[in-house]
Amino acid sequence: MALSIDDLRFDGSRPFYIHKTSCSLAQVLSDKASKDIIKDHVKALSDYQEKLFASRRRSVLIVFQAMDAAGKDSTLERLITGINPQGCQVHGFKKPTPEELEHDFLWRVNKKLPGKGNITVFNRSHYEEVLVTRVHPEYITYQNLPGIKSTADIKPAFWTNRLINIRNYEKHLADSGTVIIKFFLNVSKEEQKRRLMDRMNEEDKHWKFNLGDIEERAHWEHYMSAYEEAIQASATPHAPWYVIPADHKPTMRALVGAAVMNELAKYPVDFPQSGENIYDDIEEAKVLFDEEQSRLK
Amino acid sequence: MALSIDDLRFDGSRPFYIHKTSCSLAQVLSDKASKDIIKDHVKALSDYQEKLFASRRRSVLIVFQAMDAAGKDSTLERLITGINPQGCQVHGFKKPTPEELEHDFLWRVNKKLPGKGNITVFNRSHYEEVLVTRVHPEYITYQNLPGIKSTADIKPAFWTNRLINIRNYEKHLADSGTVIIKFFLNVSKEEQKRRLMDRMNEEDKHWKFNLGDIEERAHWEHYMSAYEEAIQASATPHAPWYVIPADHKPTMRALVGAAVMNELAKYPVDFPQSGENIYDDIEEAKVLFDEEQSRLK
Repeated sequence: MALSIDDLRFDGSRPFYIHKTSCSLAQVLSDKASKDIIKDHVKALSDYQEKLFASRRRSVLIVFQAMDAAGKDSTLERLITGINPQGCQVHGFKKPTPEELEHDFLWRVNKKLPGKGNITVFNRSHYEEVLVTRVHPEYITYQNLPGIKSTADIKPAFWTNRLINIRNYEKHLADSGTVIIKFFLNVSKEEQKRRLMDRMNEEDKHWKFNLGDIEERAHWEHYMSAYEEAIQASATPHAPWYVIPADHKPTMRALVGAAVMNELAKYPVDFPQSGENIYDDIEEAKVLFDEEQSRLK
Repeated sequence: MALSIDDLRFDGSRPFYIHKTSCSLAQVLSDKASKDIIKDHVKALSDYQEKLFASRRRSVLIVFQAMDAAGKDSTLERLITGINPQGCQVHGFKKPTPEELEHDFLWRVNKKLPGKGNITVFNRSHYEEVLVTRVHPEYITYQNLPGIKSTADIKPAFWTNRLINIRNYEKHLADSGTVIIKFFLNVSKEEQKRRLMDRMNEEDKHWKFNLGDIEERAHWEHYMSAYEEAIQASATPHAPWYVIPADHKPTMRALVGAAVMNELAKYPVDFPQSGENIYDDIEEAKVLFDEEQSRLK
């Protein structure tokens, strides 16, 4: 592919316009080629994770956002199956619980952040707080915020301010050693329709069918402008967005893996160096083993 | 007192110089006068808390910072004894645990934040991360931060940046409806010495004696400059500092109560209005009770 992975990376150095980014590529990968590439990525990510875990100086947070049926679940599954689960967690964010609604909108996210040495993947994230809530502002009224009694109280500055708070929050996390990689899997409205139709027509996909997904399509343009503003406002060098064409799944999955490794390459990790005395210690350990052995005789 | 409580309030609108603020006042309160005033404050805070709890639109976070023996524990005890513990919690921050050290420095604070309708008092707080760590930068090296292998790697910008992150964090909390009130109980070095001597000389105070407290006195000026910079950088209208003269305990306690009520007055709360249908609902409830009663006959 003539495409460079950095063409899909947005870090604030150039503007992001959702209608100028494509959902499909001229050249796509075969299933076989995609699988081979993903296999390499999983191997590379697994090696990285082992060193990350040993050095415990950084953590990695990977965020997935997308419209329904874009392939979020299967993509993140391919990305991390094969990584040691001891150092790798996935967390999905659903409708907030009553306890979560009693706190600021980052509170529940904070509890699920990766500790040092760990990789955490967010299936949806704090960005829903400027996406689904933006399309359905009545959800904001459930948060009992001061000054907001009805949706009429939610002015444009409210969203700008939320995005500033998200940006500040991610800066703090990056300062603390968290590598942040954010994905928007960019599926077209037509391709989404095809996939939702499949769920209706193929019996073994019925379990995925949800009438609500079809109703949400009526808000497509509103979602697109919410994504555009969110990505534009929160794309930074320390927490970039990768906007991945999602109409062809095998190609998308390979691109996601490439993007993760492209980003992690900026944050080299290695096994920690042992102290200067390691060889003295090893010699002493040998003596102790010998003594133990001679006592057994 | 001719003193206005706002004279002790710092919200960024004027600079804060620690050596220009006094640890004692010309006029002090008698024990009796102080107790009467505190009684009124506890009543007022209790009323506020009840409405806060009922309306659940805001939460209150009160932060206490001070040098040792300034009277933190007893002051916060007097402030909140009498408040319904169901809606009021105290949390003390000690040496971070290994799990806490594996996360960003705000992670453990976040877990203890008040939910809506609640008042939480922090006995020490995230500010220790720019105070005790500043005087003892080796603590920072335990946090395994990228780029920081020894104290020589900690430059002045590190502290400025931490303070920016704290300021951003408090802005986000305020935006979410958290009222933030921060106290620095300003005890003089001479008065601290007197109190520490008491702990050595009076047997019933021996349990409070800690040699480390005396050793920390050698760093007094370093602590003062760390406090000055921290307060200066994080004093905002939505998260102000009150710097309370602490050499006379009864006066200090009355001032703390006055400061809390002064700040809460800016955030009026009231019992939530019942819906328009409340009287219809009450009428219907009466009918149901009557029916229940007649079935019993």
